[in-house]
Amino acid sequence: MEKATRQFTKDHNRNLVLRTIFDNENISRAEIARVSRLTRTTVSDIVSDLIGEGLIMEIGLGVSSSGKNPIMLSLVEDSRWVIAVDLGQNQFRAAIVNLRGKIRDVVAIPINQRDGTEALKLTFQIIDLLLGRTNQKISGIGIGTPGLINSSEGIIVNAVNLNWINVPLAKIIKDRYNLPVQILNDCQAAAIGEKTYGNVSTTDENLVLIKLHNGIGAGIIIGGEVFQGDGGFAGEIGHNVAVREGGDFCRCGNRGCLETVASAQALVKLAKHSLNKYPNSVLSTHLPNFTIEHIEEAYRNHDFLAETLVNQSAQYIGIALSSLIGILNIQKIVLIGDMTLFGEPWLNKIREEMHQYSMDLPFNKTEIRIGQLGENATILGAAAVFVNNYSNLFRNK
Amino acid sequence: MEKATRQFTKDHNRNLVLRTIFDNENISRAEIARVSRLTRTTVSDIVSDLIGEGLIMEIGLGVSSSGKNPIMLSLVEDSRWVIAVDLGQNQFRAAIVNLRGKIRDVVAIPINQRDGTEALKLTFQIIDLLLGRTNQKISGIGIGTPGLINSSEGIIVNAVNLNWINVPLAKIIKDRYNLPVQILNDCQAAAIGEKTYGNVSTTDENLVLIKLHNGIGAGIIIGGEVFQGDGGFAGEIGHNVAVREGGDFCRCGNRGCLETVASAQALVKLAKHSLNKYPNSVLSTHLPNFTIEHIEEAYRNHDFLAETLVNQSAQYIGIALSSLIGILNIQKIVLIGDMTLFGEPWLNKIREEMHQYSMDLPFNKTEIRIGQLGENATILGAAAVFVNNYSNLFRNK
Repeated sequence: MEKATRQFTKDHNRNLVLRTIFDNENISRAEIARVSRLTRTTVSDIVSDLIGEGLIMEIGLGVSSSGKNPIMLSLVEDSRWVIAVDLGQNQFRAAIVNLRGKIRDVVAIPINQRDGTEALKLTFQIIDLLLGRTNQKISGIGIGTPGLINSSEGIIVNAVNLNWINVPLAKIIKDRYNLPVQILNDCQAAAIGEKTYGNVSTTDENLVLIKLHNGIGAGIIIGGEVFQGDGGFAGEIGHNVAVREGGDFCRCGNRGCLETVASAQALVKLAKHSLNKYPNSVLSTHLPNFTIEHIEEAYRNHDFLAETLVNQSAQYIGIALSSLIGILNIQKIVLIGDMTLFGEPWLNKIREEMHQYSMDLPFNKTEIRIGQLGENATILGAAAVFVNNYSNLFRNK
Repeated sequence: MEKATRQFTKDHNRNLVLRTIFDNENISRAEIARVSRLTRTTVSDIVSDLIGEGLIMEIGLGVSSSGKNPIMLSLVEDSRWVIAVDLGQNQFRAAIVNLRGKIRDVVAIPINQRDGTEALKLTFQIIDLLLGRTNQKISGIGIGTPGLINSSEGIIVNAVNLNWINVPLAKIIKDRYNLPVQILNDCQAAAIGEKTYGNVSTTDENLVLIKLHNGIGAGIIIGGEVFQGDGGFAGEIGHNVAVREGGDFCRCGNRGCLETVASAQALVKLAKHSLNKYPNSVLSTHLPNFTIEHIEEAYRNHDFLAETLVNQSAQYIGIALSSLIGILNIQKIVLIGDMTLFGEPWLNKIREEMHQYSMDLPFNKTEIRIGQLGENATILGAAAVFVNNYSNLFRNK
């Protein structure tokens, strides 16, 4: 609990006005006052400041049922740009993103097994590349990365694939570029992305995003904010949610982890190991190396092995999601990652399985769907961290 | 987001001062100003008001390293009393509770299978009984009950054991007693109780309480507040967290629910069904009716059947808790209910099992222990809902 001061009140009301404008295509001062319940004078003062800062503009007259047509206001969506980076498992991607989540430029560089300081150099390289291609000032840098992140201190506690342990990434990037920096877990970033720019109702304060890729993790939004748990591990369902009694050993050392049965990587591995039992599977024609896309094609063509494995993955995802419903009762669940290639039939299998392990009342109100943002979810979330934080980051251009 | 007004600032600062006094045995005005970062004048004004309301008092001089000894302030713990009711499965219990969670009077009435309007009459009866035994004014009534509760509207959506469906209990109680009323789920109430009056550090903002009784449920506290989920179902882990593939049918209609293998009721049932396979178990001497206490005694004396079943319950609780850690990463877990009779050996078995299904880093920092408040957790939580809501409920005596 912090003390409430006049500055607190002022900032709070400025954010309230800015958010109201953000939530509308265009809006009049009177309507802002009505929605925010601030006085017209307060709204007018704040609006003047925001116009002065270039964040919003007057865009002409609206219609009114009673008397004078009001002047409409709108966000200047390209008045601020941020750089957002997704330190993915196969490639680093970075983009310039505006206030409405529109991507103005994007670059990607394959990682080719680079880690440690080489991966750090690659991070510099991709940011330099974007900065070299624009003249407009950048307001901040947001980074999403797999692994355990201490966001408040900007430290990568442990990113296994990059071999980064206790790397103070925010400070390193800030020192190099002299810009505000936000670091967060890729699933948490993706959850913010889908919440801010995906097809999620603005009245939904809670959301769970599940990334089903080579790894599996969740980003949890509670009350509009990312919930990270006491140690930053919240959403680490790939290795903490036991879905099989016994089960295969996982890279984490435990057995029966969700990642060993429901990740894209696991599916490819399981398919390869099963080919001697199913020599007639079309997948054998793709040996020695086949990919998740080959499995998707086989699944679509009703290949028995592919169907068996994909349905099994759906079963275990369904069990894990039933735990999520039971613990959190968050009704919006968004799935992203390569596994979503399997589309609606796979999703229906997940729903069936969830239903089997859940009580009717919470299950019936739970909506599970595939994300809207595709591979851009993490990038847009890393950008949205800035956009959602109206008060501090965009005050001065 | 609400607009910030002068009244908002005033209430906020009043709460801040009151909470600071609440968190300390006694404290000076200067120290309140230091902790709250409010000005001394603001603190003095608020303190005067609070003394006028009888909520706090001056209790003499403290020591100071620099100059004049300060006047110390302290909460007047018996200045406000509330009635807190626990509509338990076997009995209704109600108590008069003061601001420090001290129970000043308590009554209990066995239910004897009463439900519907009979159970409502019993609720009136137990409150009447307490009111008839005191002359001091009561400030509010808090009620904890198993089942699905809509706390914001004060409605019992579904309490199976009481056969209450969509009962507007808050309104019914309020109309009868003309007092503020708060209704909440018993596990959520117990979580607030342990958070407020149990041995939980005041700096811990997050807590999960698991009630392992005849039913199984959890109360989740996030950022100091109960988290209920979108539909009020958060923490319903008894029927939503699948811990056994297949498994026995549960009263909810699903299979493999935690309640079918780890509740006190399930344990008694499983023991009875297993006696033909284990005729030498000491439990057979208690037939036809034995209780969880008999199993506890047998467990303590290393009866093979009792040990097998209790360890199995610990195993499934461990699996469910590993899901909790994986999803929420909340590091304080408190267990209450009859199952905690099995004490530390059972708890260690739970820890072992959790460890097997969890990553080291989050597991190692997670503390699981048995609650401090015994059967009073729900009652103290139902009282604490009022005590924690300083601003509205205790302004006038």
